[in-house]
Amino acid sequence: MRDVAIIGIGMRKCGELWDKSIKDLFVESALDAIDDAGVDHIDSMYIGCMTGGLFVGQEHLASMLSDHLGVNPIPACRVESACCSGGLALRQGFIDVASGMNDIVLVSGVEKMTDVGGDEATYALATASDQDYEAFQGVTFPGLYAMIARSHMDKYGTTREQLASVAVKNHANGSLNPLAQFPMKITVESVLNSVLVADPLRILDCSPITDGAAAAIICPLDKAKELSKNLPIKISGTGHATDTIALHDRADITYLKSTEIAAKIAYKMAGVGPDDIDFAEVHDCFTIAEICVIEALGFVEVGKGGSASESGLTALNGKKPINTSGGLKSKGHPVGATGIAQLYEVVEQLRGNAGKRQLDKPKRGLTQNMGGTGGSTVVHIMEVV
Amino acid sequence: MRDVAIIGIGMRKCGELWDKSIKDLFVESALDAIDDAGVDHIDSMYIGCMTGGLFVGQEHLASMLSDHLGVNPIPACRVESACCSGGLALRQGFIDVASGMNDIVLVSGVEKMTDVGGDEATYALATASDQDYEAFQGVTFPGLYAMIARSHMDKYGTTREQLASVAVKNHANGSLNPLAQFPMKITVESVLNSVLVADPLRILDCSPITDGAAAAIICPLDKAKELSKNLPIKISGTGHATDTIALHDRADITYLKSTEIAAKIAYKMAGVGPDDIDFAEVHDCFTIAEICVIEALGFVEVGKGGSASESGLTALNGKKPINTSGGLKSKGHPVGATGIAQLYEVVEQLRGNAGKRQLDKPKRGLTQNMGGTGGSTVVHIMEVV
Repeated sequence: MRDVAIIGIGMRKCGELWDKSIKDLFVESALDAIDDAGVDHIDSMYIGCMTGGLFVGQEHLASMLSDHLGVNPIPACRVESACCSGGLALRQGFIDVASGMNDIVLVSGVEKMTDVGGDEATYALATASDQDYEAFQGVTFPGLYAMIARSHMDKYGTTREQLASVAVKNHANGSLNPLAQFPMKITVESVLNSVLVADPLRILDCSPITDGAAAAIICPLDKAKELSKNLPIKISGTGHATDTIALHDRADITYLKSTEIAAKIAYKMAGVGPDDIDFAEVHDCFTIAEICVIEALGFVEVGKGGSASESGLTALNGKKPINTSGGLKSKGHPVGATGIAQLYEVVEQLRGNAGKRQLDKPKRGLTQNMGGTGGSTVVHIMEVV
Repeated sequence: MRDVAIIGIGMRKCGELWDKSIKDLFVESALDAIDDAGVDHIDSMYIGCMTGGLFVGQEHLASMLSDHLGVNPIPACRVESACCSGGLALRQGFIDVASGMNDIVLVSGVEKMTDVGGDEATYALATASDQDYEAFQGVTFPGLYAMIARSHMDKYGTTREQLASVAVKNHANGSLNPLAQFPMKITVESVLNSVLVADPLRILDCSPITDGAAAAIICPLDKAKELSKNLPIKISGTGHATDTIALHDRADITYLKSTEIAAKIAYKMAGVGPDDIDFAEVHDCFTIAEICVIEALGFVEVGKGGSASESGLTALNGKKPINTSGGLKSKGHPVGATGIAQLYEVVEQLRGNAGKRQLDKPKRGLTQNMGGTGGSTVVHIMEVV
């Protein structure tokens, strides 16, 4: 397999973008990535999108979006794995380049979520859970993650304040990110006083409904310098794993097994361990999710995710900064785009372009993107070479 | 890139399978393929499905189906390109094996279409067209293909009887296929007297709404004999191309450019031309589609697709047999599964297992699977080595 590098990225501000269609969102970010890389064509493209069918009545995005980007007849492939559709697009693009099939590949994600009302959006998102045994019974994602949170609190003594500290940190980071949907700073007190959604989770524990897109250009590492003037970022590890779709089928609902397995594969491929990762963008769809994720990634001991956040370990100036972009929580969570938006932040940090939230010369970052309650996870490790 | 071979296939009878869920359909065909190959595990899997969201309220099929097949935590990827989702799953699995990332890969397709009513199914299928400029205006697929048919008749003198001859041939073939949904023989007269759907297309010009699944096991060609006792079938060519999603954006609506381009790429990779193909399974979602497809594949001169069918060239005992399985028309069209169902027939023919519809020792077959009105096409060439 050939080594693969990222040479271009594109992303615009997330939000409730009622004046833009799914085509506009995709094309803007794709053109930005192509311009950033400085390439004059692309050979193939991958699009992560969770459910164009339920959100905008549009499937067949591979044809639709290659058409509107003006690049047909190139091969275009839409992939879906709920909220890790973006990460999966990156992985499949990686395999495409690594195989030798194509050289210059666009990997992207897009979701247009606000064209439907709240009930319809909740229904659409619930199709990422087990329709027969979870969604059909009326359980939605805040409820599922609330069960995980309650169980983590019972088992490890995780506190309500620790959950809140994740949101506070991510909004602090998001306040420094011009692309964030909700860049306001918040406090532990404001989280605790916000409206209850599914006990113990409150509205400020939840990531928002978001329109957005992100894109990147990848190519063989050994052609990166010839194709682009940008610092090539090597994708040194990729891992992908699945778990039961339904929460009730797991031995321990607080442990994200697919994340552990995907991370171990990626670490092995990159020849590194959790301690070698300078910073990470992880899937904080709810505050409890970030806590469970950093445990499964091996960044902290199992059961210590809450205290790690509260102590500042994962803060911008901490030992292991997590979600410097603001994460899904503050930056926004356009579900199919999130995995590529994570890549965008890692590349910005590695290039030294992260502005007010720039870390001190990081060399290696990780992205962890998951679907549902962890029924699927994709992990990538990216580094300066 | 490594050479890739098919070593196992699985498929059951298509139909209105109200006693089976999408999980059942997928698992049955996947287990059949695994049993047929005789492998004791799989390394990764690809699932083609057009719209689990709109048909059964279930996305995140990668997690759902790896779970219910009992193979999690392996990587699982759902791909979608409308009615060529199955062909795309085969292509992405091919790239996965060719790259060296995985050895034993399940490629599959599934669609459970009859849990919704006719209006909802028509809406779901229309999301493969341009929602803003086609579906929103009320044009559905029979209407789009009717425009193609009328244009082909005007431009080339194609007759109503020639369209009917495609359906008659495919039902004759399907009558010899135990897996066909509609195995009854029909006549030109019965097609011409069937109910009008969208002038000039009548109900017997249209493929049906179908529940079904199909699966195959692929692996590196050089490991095929060690992994399975079956005759390895080499995938000698793969081609994938896109076109405008909307019909009105094309210079000539009777010509399937994405099919021409995908086929040319596959021919080049396999080192063959149209004349070297012994038989083919093609996307006859409507009778006019098969006519346009065999022209774009280079099997017949442009404009001669109708007369080729009427003259018997494409019949089971003709010079270039097309859709020996009965095609989408008679065998059924579970949209996401169709591309893999085509592979199933080609492998059955190449193995000499096609029963009453067996061709005389064919050596090389082709599958052509397309999305929408040809907004995307995937072509594969398979041969005995």
